[in-house]
Amino acid sequence: MSQNIYDDQGFFEGYAQLPRSRQGLAGAPEWPALQAMLPPLAGKRVLDLGCGYGWFCRVAREQGAAGVLGIDLSARMLARAAELTRDEAICYRQGDLNGLELSGESFDLIYSSLALHYLPEVAPLFAEIHRALVAGGRLVFSVEHPIFTCPQPQGWLVDGEGRRSWPVNGYQAEGKRISNWLADGVIKYHRTLGSYLNALIGAGFQIAHVEEWGPSAASQPV
Amino acid sequence: MSQNIYDDQGFFEGYAQLPRSRQGLAGAPEWPALQAMLPPLAGKRVLDLGCGYGWFCRVAREQGAAGVLGIDLSARMLARAAELTRDEAICYRQGDLNGLELSGESFDLIYSSLALHYLPEVAPLFAEIHRALVAGGRLVFSVEHPIFTCPQPQGWLVDGEGRRSWPVNGYQAEGKRISNWLADGVIKYHRTLGSYLNALIGAGFQIAHVEEWGPSAASQPV
Repeated sequence: MSQNIYDDQGFFEGYAQLPRSRQGLAGAPEWPALQAMLPPLAGKRVLDLGCGYGWFCRVAREQGAAGVLGIDLSARMLARAAELTRDEAICYRQGDLNGLELSGESFDLIYSSLALHYLPEVAPLFAEIHRALVAGGRLVFSVEHPIFTCPQPQGWLVDGEGRRSWPVNGYQAEGKRISNWLADGVIKYHRTLGSYLNALIGAGFQIAHVEEWGPSAASQPV
Repeated sequence: MSQNIYDDQGFFEGYAQLPRSRQGLAGAPEWPALQAMLPPLAGKRVLDLGCGYGWFCRVAREQGAAGVLGIDLSARMLARAAELTRDEAICYRQGDLNGLELSGESFDLIYSSLALHYLPEVAPLFAEIHRALVAGGRLVFSVEHPIFTCPQPQGWLVDGEGRRSWPVNGYQAEGKRISNWLADGVIKYHRTLGSYLNALIGAGFQIAHVEEWGPSAASQPV
């Protein structure tokens, strides 16, 4: 079972204050890069893994998706999603992506934003996703970049000239990383970019695009 | 035209002292990872882009390749390759990978070790490689990892506890990087891992495996 950090009171309250929680996808600086990878959604059956407040589910419907299923581990997130949603073609379901089964369901697009780095393993989920996609279906997802997830401790370095660097260590040492972001003891799993890609290929996917998104100067944390 | 740093007297002499120059592939710690990606070579037509001393060309023939062509920009490297080679099925040719044309030739395997990061652009070369490969042919290559090529200045950081980190900055800023390795002013080009992969996909390749090789503790530079 995955850590259910989004149901932690302090984490949930902190997360609720982020621009991406208050403004939806417009508050997520990486959204345009993800959006550019989406196929046309009109008439499509869409699944969002780690749907949170359901922002993407609602956008998919606005873009004409026939039906959207959102799955999330956090009951609090799903309760908020339900409050924000008035659309019978969107369904929310509580579920753990770790060990997820999608028996009998099929989708044209499976989407996931910043969720899969919470999973100790991705190969079983990729296999399940591949089974649940129709022929020609797409998986579009984002994860924290492995450059970002690898080091311990995490934190920017600033040299004498004010140049900021991210100190990379332990890149090949895949596994659990503990960070203190909104709450203490948030568990994420570092794996290399190659491991994500090879797991996808092993599950039967053909890689169509790899976008290593990074913040522009305007959206950099200060 | 690419910088021909391998014909620089100081660089050439320094390179000649490296384990990979003196011991061949056995002196290249990443070789087992590359070797694991190679298809069976018996009867195959092989091209090595940036063949250097021709170590891989000779190994390909030992493994039964029908014929091997090695291309390199450096006349000095090719002269040394010719000295080391007694095999009429291996041919060396001087050529710049930047702007390379392989008209009329076709290969089952195209290989390249640590050469493509010297090129300002890889998309034209990938397109040319794809044209020159038979159906079902393979491209197996290594480049310096973008984590390694991105920062300026380059150099390890060691914190108070003796932990070594590689300071990453400028990852998204693709383009020229100047390093002083064996000689001053060595020009390499940084591009993201995604850019390499998207250029391959754009040229018609299907990605089969991505190996982010790193040195083990035993082979770490000190």
